[in-house]
Amino acid sequence: MWYTTFLFLFATGSSYYLGGLRPHPPSEESTLPLGRATMPQLKANVENMQAAWVDFVTLLGEGRVSTEKNDLDFHSTSSWSAHQAKADDRPFMVLFPQTTQEVSDIMKICHKRHIPVVGFSGGTSLEGHYTPTHGGVCVDFTHMNKIVALHKDDLDVVVQPGVGWESLNDQLRKENLFFPPDPGPGAMIGGMIGTGCSGTNAYRYGTMREWVLSVTAVLADGTIVKTRQRARKSSAGYDLTKVFIGSEGTLGLVTEATLKLAVVPEHTSVAVASFPTIRDAANCVGRVVSHGIPVAAVEILDDNQMQCINQAGMTSRKWAETPTLFFKFSGTERAVKEQIETTKKLSKQAQGKSFEFAKSVEEQHELWSARKEALWSTMAVKKEGDRVWTGDVAVPMTRLPDLIEETKISLKKSGLFGSIVGHVGDGNFHLILLYNDAQRKIAEGVVHDMVKRAVEMEGTVTGEHGVGLVKRDYLPHELGQSTVDLMRKMKTAFDPLCLLNCDKVIRMNKPKPGDLTQW
Amino acid sequence: MWYTTFLFLFATGSSYYLGGLRPHPPSEESTLPLGRATMPQLKANVENMQAAWVDFVTLLGEGRVSTEKNDLDFHSTSSWSAHQAKADDRPFMVLFPQTTQEVSDIMKICHKRHIPVVGFSGGTSLEGHYTPTHGGVCVDFTHMNKIVALHKDDLDVVVQPGVGWESLNDQLRKENLFFPPDPGPGAMIGGMIGTGCSGTNAYRYGTMREWVLSVTAVLADGTIVKTRQRARKSSAGYDLTKVFIGSEGTLGLVTEATLKLAVVPEHTSVAVASFPTIRDAANCVGRVVSHGIPVAAVEILDDNQMQCINQAGMTSRKWAETPTLFFKFSGTERAVKEQIETTKKLSKQAQGKSFEFAKSVEEQHELWSARKEALWSTMAVKKEGDRVWTGDVAVPMTRLPDLIEETKISLKKSGLFGSIVGHVGDGNFHLILLYNDAQRKIAEGVVHDMVKRAVEMEGTVTGEHGVGLVKRDYLPHELGQSTVDLMRKMKTAFDPLCLLNCDKVIRMNKPKPGDLTQW
Repeated sequence: MWYTTFLFLFATGSSYYLGGLRPHPPSEESTLPLGRATMPQLKANVENMQAAWVDFVTLLGEGRVSTEKNDLDFHSTSSWSAHQAKADDRPFMVLFPQTTQEVSDIMKICHKRHIPVVGFSGGTSLEGHYTPTHGGVCVDFTHMNKIVALHKDDLDVVVQPGVGWESLNDQLRKENLFFPPDPGPGAMIGGMIGTGCSGTNAYRYGTMREWVLSVTAVLADGTIVKTRQRARKSSAGYDLTKVFIGSEGTLGLVTEATLKLAVVPEHTSVAVASFPTIRDAANCVGRVVSHGIPVAAVEILDDNQMQCINQAGMTSRKWAETPTLFFKFSGTERAVKEQIETTKKLSKQAQGKSFEFAKSVEEQHELWSARKEALWSTMAVKKEGDRVWTGDVAVPMTRLPDLIEETKISLKKSGLFGSIVGHVGDGNFHLILLYNDAQRKIAEGVVHDMVKRAVEMEGTVTGEHGVGLVKRDYLPHELGQSTVDLMRKMKTAFDPLCLLNCDKVIRMNKPKPGDLTQW
Repeated sequence: MWYTTFLFLFATGSSYYLGGLRPHPPSEESTLPLGRATMPQLKANVENMQAAWVDFVTLLGEGRVSTEKNDLDFHSTSSWSAHQAKADDRPFMVLFPQTTQEVSDIMKICHKRHIPVVGFSGGTSLEGHYTPTHGGVCVDFTHMNKIVALHKDDLDVVVQPGVGWESLNDQLRKENLFFPPDPGPGAMIGGMIGTGCSGTNAYRYGTMREWVLSVTAVLADGTIVKTRQRARKSSAGYDLTKVFIGSEGTLGLVTEATLKLAVVPEHTSVAVASFPTIRDAANCVGRVVSHGIPVAAVEILDDNQMQCINQAGMTSRKWAETPTLFFKFSGTERAVKEQIETTKKLSKQAQGKSFEFAKSVEEQHELWSARKEALWSTMAVKKEGDRVWTGDVAVPMTRLPDLIEETKISLKKSGLFGSIVGHVGDGNFHLILLYNDAQRKIAEGVVHDMVKRAVEMEGTVTGEHGVGLVKRDYLPHELGQSTVDLMRKMKTAFDPLCLLNCDKVIRMNKPKPGDLTQW
């Protein structure tokens, strides 16, 4: 650094800083390494929070400020999260705003009082995104659940963050429109933007990044920004929409979003093909992709997963317990028929053992049901005391069979039960792992090995679940230290006091001894 | 601000700052209004540049450091740019690096010496993006023109920024692959990323934002970052790839990019339909879109444009001089046939006067040639002393006919000649305006009115050309002042000394009297 000592003389100022640390010394550098980050003190102590409670009640009324234990527990963790919250990882209170202006007023109070803030919508995230490790307040968006405006001829819709993607699609169906991103059930637009999620439709339609035109966000100091108007494309300035997508509530709280919509295809169908090995199945997908067949989705389920589905008995038939591909097709009736014919031929060339396609809407639902019930089927075969861990990685498409095979070997060695479900057209898959508390370390090891392998295969530590608390320390391995240090610089520009989901995605405080797993 | 006076005592330090301004006082705020931005002094004076010349020659050799007048002129402006450079808007020298490391070393020298830097690749941009208004150095990427690695089974390719999209597609054709974004001829990947460009393929395939997986960029202080590995999707940390796309060289210099590729469709065709009015043509597009017909492109040319094409005689036939739609179709032979049949029917319902489609590859080229030659045809009808101004806006699709009609009325009133070419499926169009030096103010007025109308229709001041110098002052009107102030905060985080294309996209220095046009 170019200076070694400095002294501030204050004429006026906030008492927080008298004699204290400055949050971010001015720097000529483009990155902010953790060693040089001097974090300001967050103030989640009882006195400050009680005083803030009065402010929030004045703003929202008592009915929308909760300190009920149930509410605090519900907003801390879930049974399906890979991250297990500690007993004191609880918010002091949960706030339920109804407008962007209220969110801005909340943030102004938190900014003045240095209170940490975590955003919350559907609560379906998996990596500890909303666990309030610094206490403070949780801002729950479930009261902001309106469709603000549907512009059906422009193919866009303006929504609040507490709208669920499933109920949105229920509304849109009447207009022959839909919103393609389809993550886990229960997810809401706010969290879906935060995580940059996707789902089975991503292969054909892309992820959240491709379907959000604009967001309104409240920044850490209460400033309201809107990233774009409604044109379907724009080159006007930095792409702040994309900056907020995948930022996991660390850069701002999204209070409204304009989403692009797609027209429901005229005709759809589903086909299921089983293969002797994962490699044969992946090989089939490679052929389908390089033939340019515009399949609407292609999912892979491994032998264990097919076994779970049979065992759980949630679908109306028995399935072959071998690696299986699930295809969705869409287009005109003729185009779908043609796609199915070609896919059937390619599947046979890739050693496919069976190929079955739906001849009616009912058969479509029946065939797709196995894919739909995959997670729940694995949950259903849990033993007493078992937890579930849904890990997520993505690699370049040709590396997927290697990664799945090696993960299955490592799983076998570990003695744990796990199944694999993959968005195979994107090189993205999930390992659904069962473990009990005694096996936690073993489970961590299996996931760690999978993540490390993905990075070594030029892949990513998360295809669609996000980083949260669980994957922070993997980022430097995937992206390089300087890239993470640039993200940290960006975080401190947007949120100099580190109020918003502080320490998630990017570490802002140094890890404690024992926090870091050996790479 | 929380302090009113401060004093720095230096133990060691750079003489630049003794008694001077700090570049960015630490702030607790999330945005940086222009009034609070204290810009550091850029040092493009002759002594500093001559001393730097020695550094650069040592690094690159004399052959790759040019101070030739021709080179300086070529790297300052072009005849097709809407922004006209002043006589002293010239770089002191042009550098031709060959590796990322060299670019990093260049930036380290510039950072140490506070030298302003402008990146340059194809030089086809329209809004003054590469005009060196602060002098300093131009970094020309045309020596970095290699395809680094083609992963055809993963559908991606790693390229240097000096690769042109046309030559890239020439290479890819052998593998039955292509890179969809198709901006003006001569554009290169570096500039295409900088501008966040698109083209006729955007309606079906999306813009640069959808086709760049990862970039390697050199930051203002010489730090090298790589934003992603090669997985086709990722939720690992902030989306820095998208941050660099559309940042117009203000946040970093892109030295390598991994691009997604598409498989060449089995079959294509082209159709041309003429209409009595722009509104009828737009109406036809609305019907085609809401029917979910997956057309590969749909372009609109107005009556003036069709007249230019006839007058220029660059195509082998005469066209009806009325608003005309150009469609591209792709898919299997059967699917294309079906798409054409439906589009023909819909065109008739929308008062289409004629509908013609290609029955051979030759006919495809013939029909599409009118679209392809649009800009050149307008240039060909220029009078002595005429310049060309290609303006670009986008609005929600349903507002396009209003905007085009109003723009045509304003054009008529102005007495200037202009034609309209639009990516109508995206609500994006270009006004190609002819004017001579005496008419410059009138031309500015026509473009200003079009941009203002687009903003009032919830649109954007640029769909694909970018902001550069020309559209900076429109951003607050489109996005709101706080959003622009957030962009400025981001810029200063990435580039605290404002070395990189300083004052483009976002003003960093206060406008001079007379700079601002009345809104």
